[in-house]
Amino acid sequence: MSGVTMAAEMAEQPVVLSALLERRDRIRSALQLMLPSPLCGATLVARGSSDHAARYARYVFEIAMLRPVSLAAPSIHTIYGARVRCDGYLAVAISQSGRTPEVVRVLREMGEAGAATVAVVNHGDSPLAQAASLVVGLEAGEERAVPATKTFTATLLALAILAEALGPVPWDEADLGRLPDAAEALLDDAAPARRLAERLAGADRVVVTARGLLLGAAEEIALKLRETTGVFAEALSVADMRHGPIAAVTPGVLVVSVSAPGPAASGIEAFEDELSSRGVEVIRIGPAGDLRLPAAMPEALQPVLATIRGQQLALATAQALGLDPDHPAGLTKVTLTH
Amino acid sequence: MSGVTMAAEMAEQPVVLSALLERRDRIRSALQLMLPSPLCGATLVARGSSDHAARYARYVFEIAMLRPVSLAAPSIHTIYGARVRCDGYLAVAISQSGRTPEVVRVLREMGEAGAATVAVVNHGDSPLAQAASLVVGLEAGEERAVPATKTFTATLLALAILAEALGPVPWDEADLGRLPDAAEALLDDAAPARRLAERLAGADRVVVTARGLLLGAAEEIALKLRETTGVFAEALSVADMRHGPIAAVTPGVLVVSVSAPGPAASGIEAFEDELSSRGVEVIRIGPAGDLRLPAAMPEALQPVLATIRGQQLALATAQALGLDPDHPAGLTKVTLTH
Repeated sequence: MSGVTMAAEMAEQPVVLSALLERRDRIRSALQLMLPSPLCGATLVARGSSDHAARYARYVFEIAMLRPVSLAAPSIHTIYGARVRCDGYLAVAISQSGRTPEVVRVLREMGEAGAATVAVVNHGDSPLAQAASLVVGLEAGEERAVPATKTFTATLLALAILAEALGPVPWDEADLGRLPDAAEALLDDAAPARRLAERLAGADRVVVTARGLLLGAAEEIALKLRETTGVFAEALSVADMRHGPIAAVTPGVLVVSVSAPGPAASGIEAFEDELSSRGVEVIRIGPAGDLRLPAAMPEALQPVLATIRGQQLALATAQALGLDPDHPAGLTKVTLTH
Repeated sequence: MSGVTMAAEMAEQPVVLSALLERRDRIRSALQLMLPSPLCGATLVARGSSDHAARYARYVFEIAMLRPVSLAAPSIHTIYGARVRCDGYLAVAISQSGRTPEVVRVLREMGEAGAATVAVVNHGDSPLAQAASLVVGLEAGEERAVPATKTFTATLLALAILAEALGPVPWDEADLGRLPDAAEALLDDAAPARRLAERLAGADRVVVTARGLLLGAAEEIALKLRETTGVFAEALSVADMRHGPIAAVTPGVLVVSVSAPGPAASGIEAFEDELSSRGVEVIRIGPAGDLRLPAAMPEALQPVLATIRGQQLALATAQALGLDPDHPAGLTKVTLTH
């Protein structure tokens, strides 16, 4: 059956997350030792799936460090050649392979320009690791399927651990420790995604919505669906939707809505109801959703679990369509953008 | 005929741009007087079309000031209640109406937290104007059609003028002055968009691509098409496309590619050729494109002109579909997200 590799790598996630948690104290201490003072802000450098993890970090870092955080625009460095001064900044680059040339170049230039540099990377001997002062290795093992799964959720956890070194975070000491078991429980519950696969397989337009801390997971779910099934899926924040794109959400569009208990939940539920009343079909990923998330996990850690639900949906939909999600047409594992 | 208001407001753009240029020196001086020292960075606060203008500013500001620039995530302030310290930051909020509650609140909080605050706004007596230390009024006159046109291009010009106060910019003194005439010339050349409208009207998926300085314009063009025609249009950077979404760009998808002479052009042309060779239909907005841009204008100012091409395309496509672009279904002029 197709998707064997992707499924196997998804199944490794609890073990990978557990192993990363064992290095939690060391990672936090290492980051604390290198933080600039005074701290101006932080910037994240990434592409593809890693950019969705960066979106997550953009929220948790800013909430923890209480200084502005940005997503770097690589072309400012690589195409326009601007020499941006980065003293007072923490720069974190994210890449599974550590070999995307523009990501390596931007992190190196930021370090030369004064930033404290960190690489979150699965390949510890990669050019990106060599360009960073601190390397947070995911140690997830080789990822062979083209769609990133275990490296993506491990990256989210690595970024959550880094956030703990930046200031107060919206979760307790014990919550992170419960993530591997929570991931395992979801992975053991693959039937709901298989039941929904038929509906997704028939859709030709999908919008994945969320807000705030879950937006990065929504982006990743949209990309997984797109990579593995070829469906036209995109992610939009609920707030951005209301400023125009909602005009194109008609009953022919399938909406996948991602939510978790927390301050963003009420706005998302109101939006789901509004779409339903307009005849738009909504698949809910959330504590009371079609694809369940555990109600007790803090919102800021739910992106790991919501992503797993999205992986299940993408895998099951690709299989329902008779496609091979391990090797999507037109894609390679390492994308060499400059 | 439908779209009368949108067409009339598009036609006002050269006059609006000229009037804004007359205030250029005053705007630059006012910003220079209030800049923090030392300067940590800048952050932009916006939603909807204004957020696409913010994307443009994210590039030109960083290239000019050589410090990191971020797009604010409003929910960090409004939903998660984080009190982000903003000393050393320039905060620029953008809103046509000046009445989107979350934009007003975020700018006010950033000011209270130490940022130097600027509002780029069409309504000088709005809550957003009251929350800012410096108000850059667009003075574009009332905009009645729901899709922003003259206020959007005026915002781009206002942001370019602000960038001139931040450091060296990639255009000459005279280039800005030539923008109104260049806009007029494009507006007098509406036939090409009408010829392309038929092809767009038949598309159910559109991807608008660009890179770097033109990415904000690509986002705005995608939103215009979506608002006015209901077509499923989205914008993606060429680099991001290669990291996954390209898998869903099959011959059924129409690509609108935006480019201008400059360091990003060769990468975009290679991408256009690659798509064409895969059987994907590409509509080119650029100096040698289906929708022409003047070859002599610097890339950093082309977003104003590329946007006008997109407006023409959206208007003509809506009319070809028998839709009223002045009042798209489900949208209002002021969107009150919190």
